[in-house]
Amino acid sequence: MRDALPDLCARRSAIWAGTTTPQAQLAQAQDRAQAPPCRHAFVSTSFESAGRAAAQPELRQRPLAGLAVSVKDLFDVAGEPTTAGAAVLQDAPPAAADSVAVARLRAAGAVFVGRSHMPEFAFSAVGINPHLPTPHNVADPVVPRVPGGSSSGAAVSVAAGAALIGLGSDTGGSIRTPAALNGIVGFKPTARRVPLRGTVPLSPTLDSIGAVTLSVRDAIVVHEVLAARAIRVEHKPPGMRRLAVPRTLLLDGLDETVSAAFGAALARLAQVGFHIEDIDLPVIQEFGGLQSRGGFAAFEAYAWHRDRLARDAGRYDPRVLARILKGRAMGEGDYIALCQARRRWIEAVEALTADFDALLSPTVPMVAPPIADVAPGAERDDAFFEVNARLVRNTSVVNMLDGCALTLPCQQAGQLPVGLMVWHGCMRDDTVLCTALQVEAALTERPAPARPWRTWRP
Amino acid sequence: MRDALPDLCARRSAIWAGTTTPQAQLAQAQDRAQAPPCRHAFVSTSFESAGRAAAQPELRQRPLAGLAVSVKDLFDVAGEPTTAGAAVLQDAPPAAADSVAVARLRAAGAVFVGRSHMPEFAFSAVGINPHLPTPHNVADPVVPRVPGGSSSGAAVSVAAGAALIGLGSDTGGSIRTPAALNGIVGFKPTARRVPLRGTVPLSPTLDSIGAVTLSVRDAIVVHEVLAARAIRVEHKPPGMRRLAVPRTLLLDGLDETVSAAFGAALARLAQVGFHIEDIDLPVIQEFGGLQSRGGFAAFEAYAWHRDRLARDAGRYDPRVLARILKGRAMGEGDYIALCQARRRWIEAVEALTADFDALLSPTVPMVAPPIADVAPGAERDDAFFEVNARLVRNTSVVNMLDGCALTLPCQQAGQLPVGLMVWHGCMRDDTVLCTALQVEAALTERPAPARPWRTWRP
Repeated sequence: MRDALPDLCARRSAIWAGTTTPQAQLAQAQDRAQAPPCRHAFVSTSFESAGRAAAQPELRQRPLAGLAVSVKDLFDVAGEPTTAGAAVLQDAPPAAADSVAVARLRAAGAVFVGRSHMPEFAFSAVGINPHLPTPHNVADPVVPRVPGGSSSGAAVSVAAGAALIGLGSDTGGSIRTPAALNGIVGFKPTARRVPLRGTVPLSPTLDSIGAVTLSVRDAIVVHEVLAARAIRVEHKPPGMRRLAVPRTLLLDGLDETVSAAFGAALARLAQVGFHIEDIDLPVIQEFGGLQSRGGFAAFEAYAWHRDRLARDAGRYDPRVLARILKGRAMGEGDYIALCQARRRWIEAVEALTADFDALLSPTVPMVAPPIADVAPGAERDDAFFEVNARLVRNTSVVNMLDGCALTLPCQQAGQLPVGLMVWHGCMRDDTVLCTALQVEAALTERPAPARPWRTWRP
Repeated sequence: MRDALPDLCARRSAIWAGTTTPQAQLAQAQDRAQAPPCRHAFVSTSFESAGRAAAQPELRQRPLAGLAVSVKDLFDVAGEPTTAGAAVLQDAPPAAADSVAVARLRAAGAVFVGRSHMPEFAFSAVGINPHLPTPHNVADPVVPRVPGGSSSGAAVSVAAGAALIGLGSDTGGSIRTPAALNGIVGFKPTARRVPLRGTVPLSPTLDSIGAVTLSVRDAIVVHEVLAARAIRVEHKPPGMRRLAVPRTLLLDGLDETVSAAFGAALARLAQVGFHIEDIDLPVIQEFGGLQSRGGFAAFEAYAWHRDRLARDAGRYDPRVLARILKGRAMGEGDYIALCQARRRWIEAVEALTADFDALLSPTVPMVAPPIADVAPGAERDDAFFEVNARLVRNTSVVNMLDGCALTLPCQQAGQLPVGLMVWHGCMRDDTVLCTALQVEAALTERPAPARPWRTWRP
């Protein structure tokens, strides 16, 4: 995938060198958006206004150089309604202003090519929304497979070449899961790094704003724009890095493709000098208990939806509705207890992981299942909820940890995509990104660029 | 103060060199504990068992080398009741096990010389508890002045030389305020750095565990023990550090002594090469709104105390009771709204401060007031609450930010103590500590040691 499609940094260099133009790049993106792999990835496109934006000569010298961004349908874009994939928001008025994330991308020279598909209110990781046709996973042209979610259209739009940045959000894995299943890169920063203002919330405690991209260096460029900061580059070779592989829970029940790819990736990383240690992380087993009553997402979503549910519950996706309603049973004591249990859990995980540069896990324990197995309909609800839980089992650990994580592809040739997740706790974003850059270089057998992006302040 | 009393690192070196012994140091501490400046700093002492512990030869080679620690009365110590300064806990059974903080200090070779005075349930910063005589601030032998709180006995015990470490907790300033008012060092780490297990909670969201010490290098040694980690030492001279002085709110209404000391400290820091910039931080003005209904402390304290209040409200300090009861009026929606408002506020502060190594503010805008002005009694309640609010106005900003902060003395010769607070956001502990080491060196006109402590893992 990455060999087939030059990444944002490569195209930006070509624009800066004068060998291509934003308009030419946009025309190519539009072709890709209309080709079959991208079908249903967008709920609406805006190539015409994107073209007008890309024609402004001053855009070219900005960090995103007039290149294409898809916007998940839960971000406000001035003048457009924000529907969050929900029937009940179809008549939302146009947003008065850009969300912070969109405003920062715009100021950095991005052009917006469309709003991307998502499950209703971002409350599932499978990538299915009964109100909308499902975009197909780009990796399998024969069997229609789920795209993963909730940033489903974001991942498909980037993997299919219709955008170079898929702006997304991640509450339990919603950037990393679809990125992993489609064979691209996805970065979820520490939640507080990027302001939520102007987004439809799922769980404001856990919601994190990031993007799917074609490479780790692109992930760094976009994170620097979204967080309005320059990362601190670490000059530390692989031989000086200690990486941990937690054995507890996160390696349970891997399917064969994931198991083989993850094992091969670890072997390759050890070969280039990373110090890799298996560790036990028994406290991870307590994670299920923190989530058992619905966790932060159910409670905070129920608080946000309560009034609307009283009027309009019948227009919700029944599967999303069931998850939101779990929050109704939680009282204020449960919520405080959850906040406090989370703190104790974070303390315990930090104590066991603080000495490592980063941790490594399979992003998702399975490859993308066929859509037919989990399509809408009550008769497949059990399968849907079971698949959904597996899809976010590993990723959601990082959200509960208040941490940061990047997924990058590690599948073997000819296999369905498998994500390798490089992760750590709160505010370790820069170490995770710099480690991931080296990991990507090792897995693609290309040298890691010392500083391949150009730091820029908005 | 620091010239008069050698710090923990100096004494430890002497023990390691064989020129003194833990027993000799303990005898000196006991003399100091019995001298007038330390009066009422302890609610109970344990020099006899400390003597038996200090006699163990293997203690000498440990990082705390058999030196004296006072323990704030809210930490569990195996075999002792934990009363948290509360009449309603006077008949508490002995703790079955050490709290995490006490266990880590013990494993590092500390000996425990007593339980230190605190306001009831740590819910005030003045340092007065109507159930107990008030320890006097060590800085003024003539006018009895408040010690500051809630780690009041902790600060007095260290400033008076009866202990080298005062184990404390800080929910809104409870380590830094008494450290500043008594002219010593206090460090509040990012809350999640040190587990709370085995402590009586005030607000588990904000509660942070740290210590008062005689020097910044001592603060580093103790933090490494309490957080069970080695800090990352930054090799960055003052001339490469950018420090910000937020003008908004934090410089309002400084008393003359504080204003003069803070100004002189900034001038000296600029002289040694620090880049110091005044910044506006208008979002700080929103801070009052976050706290107006009692904030996290009132809500979480009320949840913890509710059952006990139904039986026993009459035995509470009426001033503490009034603060806890503010939480009764908050509903679950208020609490979620508070959590979300806090996140937005953190995002906004981070955006304005991310580029700086650290921020500088006066720790407390006033010097310690006379005890007579705020002594128990309804007729002085208004004065008490007003002073209390001023004492934590600056420090509590850091707790709401989920940040970290160190206070060190910066008063001019012959003046009452004034604290200079070096602070930043979440997980910036190592930068704050390394910056503070250089700040201390500049203010005391001694060279900053490159790595004066010995890193040690429990």
